[in-house]
Amino acid sequence: MAPNAKQITNTRILISKIPEGVAPNKSHFRSITYTEDAPVLKQDEILVKNLIFSLDPYIRHDFPEGKEETSVHGFAIGKIESSNNAKFPVGALVFSPSHWETYTHVHDPQFLNDVTVLDGIVDPKIPLAAYNGVLGVPGFTVWDSLNEIGNLKKGETIYISSAAGTLGQLAGQLAKRKGLRVIGSAGTDEKVAYLKNELGFDAAFNYKTQDKRAALTEAAGEAGLDVYYDLVGDDTTEIVIDLLNPHGRILAVGILSVHQNEEPYAPKNLINILFKQLRYEGYLVFERYENLGKFWEEVTPLVAKGEIKYTDTILKQGVETLGETYVKFLSGAFQGKVNVQVADL
Amino acid sequence: MAPNAKQITNTRILISKIPEGVAPNKSHFRSITYTEDAPVLKQDEILVKNLIFSLDPYIRHDFPEGKEETSVHGFAIGKIESSNNAKFPVGALVFSPSHWETYTHVHDPQFLNDVTVLDGIVDPKIPLAAYNGVLGVPGFTVWDSLNEIGNLKKGETIYISSAAGTLGQLAGQLAKRKGLRVIGSAGTDEKVAYLKNELGFDAAFNYKTQDKRAALTEAAGEAGLDVYYDLVGDDTTEIVIDLLNPHGRILAVGILSVHQNEEPYAPKNLINILFKQLRYEGYLVFERYENLGKFWEEVTPLVAKGEIKYTDTILKQGVETLGETYVKFLSGAFQGKVNVQVADL
Repeated sequence: MAPNAKQITNTRILISKIPEGVAPNKSHFRSITYTEDAPVLKQDEILVKNLIFSLDPYIRHDFPEGKEETSVHGFAIGKIESSNNAKFPVGALVFSPSHWETYTHVHDPQFLNDVTVLDGIVDPKIPLAAYNGVLGVPGFTVWDSLNEIGNLKKGETIYISSAAGTLGQLAGQLAKRKGLRVIGSAGTDEKVAYLKNELGFDAAFNYKTQDKRAALTEAAGEAGLDVYYDLVGDDTTEIVIDLLNPHGRILAVGILSVHQNEEPYAPKNLINILFKQLRYEGYLVFERYENLGKFWEEVTPLVAKGEIKYTDTILKQGVETLGETYVKFLSGAFQGKVNVQVADL
Repeated sequence: MAPNAKQITNTRILISKIPEGVAPNKSHFRSITYTEDAPVLKQDEILVKNLIFSLDPYIRHDFPEGKEETSVHGFAIGKIESSNNAKFPVGALVFSPSHWETYTHVHDPQFLNDVTVLDGIVDPKIPLAAYNGVLGVPGFTVWDSLNEIGNLKKGETIYISSAAGTLGQLAGQLAKRKGLRVIGSAGTDEKVAYLKNELGFDAAFNYKTQDKRAALTEAAGEAGLDVYYDLVGDDTTEIVIDLLNPHGRILAVGILSVHQNEEPYAPKNLINILFKQLRYEGYLVFERYENLGKFWEEVTPLVAKGEIKYTDTILKQGVETLGETYVKFLSGAFQGKVNVQVADL
């Protein structure tokens, strides 16, 4: 041990390869706690104290492929604990590509590039956790995908699958503000009621208790569908292709069905992409962060005034619970955006 | 019979419903010939003498659904025989939505709207039949779809299925002129040689004798694919989705497989539309004719100078042969654009 080296106690979640075709369960995660020397920071490197972890479906795609246990990647709102980088002063609040652990040493240049300072951006009237959700990457994903590939037009009809989730809620509200008729589906009657009564969706149905094709056909009505905001990537696509009007669009933004370990569905009616001149397009947020500023400028005041609503869950628990909570999260046990707050703000 | 009424002798092909799942065969068509009063033309109506019929895959989708025999829709280059429409003087050459018959009475306002005067457009150095093919709707389809939804960039790689057909030949040559690397496939070694030796394709393979996935993977090489110009709508789509680079495009323009009565193929890897941010888009020419002038302006000189090549077949036969010839055409028996010239020019 170097003289005067500061020591930190770190709790860290480790995961090893999950066999193919098996959904993650709590036995796949292990928590370790140990006290070690704080890392010596090279030029540009930082040490982040993680505060509020964002649980996101895509995290599982970074789980290890090999035999060795590794730590888990996951975005968090954190505070700069120590720094060798002028852009990130000690004490600054950041949105950071961290790991599931108490402190994360960010040293990979690509990850350093994705650290975003939140001081000056956070609106004090808005809870900090919102910057993991409606005002974080999920919110930005929705706003940017609708702008970039949605081509939404007043009077059109949009259908949003998984509409009660973080992305779906915002997509519906943004589409509504652009003058579209908005249809959503969700997996419980409470969520369906929330969509209709709180978020102003024009129609909503429970995809677990109702026949999806019949319910969507009825909700679409004679006007049909113009846009499908696809957050699930399942057999709904085939139903939608039958209901879309000419020049309709499918925005492929989420793949909840894959996260939940479903077999990919192969639609048999793709010929209609030609017959109806449809556009089926995929969106990933990772190349787009240069528009974050515009997003915050437009959407922050709407959230602050309550004109855009959102639901979230903030679980105050230790780092050691993250693996088990993530398994519950993937099964749809929580409402809205799910955060785990592991330290006081 | 009204006094002084002019009489015409008309040979006409009739067709009745083809049972589902059955490819058209010559027994489904019947030819009748009779002499009748020439139609009395109401305001705007015309009578066209059909000269060169264009055989096109999509014609079969207009075959009747009901029990009654009907005449067959099909575009033709014709001459105005009589007219009650100032836009179409007697003797003018037109490209016209006709029927498979000697004379067609065009009276439906929508069809009248699609009649295009060719006088002043036809380049005397170019055979008239080209205006059914490379300089007709097929050529325009290619030019306009590549411009409107192709987003072609120099240095990219495009793959064209059914590349030796009218559309494929032009698509490859136009893409080549834009600086793309061009790969094509065709169903005979002669056609493959033509693509490589005459049209300057960078790579081509025989999809009937070679393994499609292996051949396309080799042709794409390390550069991969950026654009798929899809003229067949079969299982090639699934192979292509695996080979496309991020931000790749699939232009769905033709459905030869469906015309040939194949079952629609359901690709199992559409999830990559999201992962690779692909765009899969359909194109139909019918709403686009306002750009025809620009197309002729740009492409006519290239065809006249031989900078754009094309192959066609001109069969000089009577109207009564059209049904049987169409069946042969659908089976791929002819080379390039197929025309049936039923009268002297």
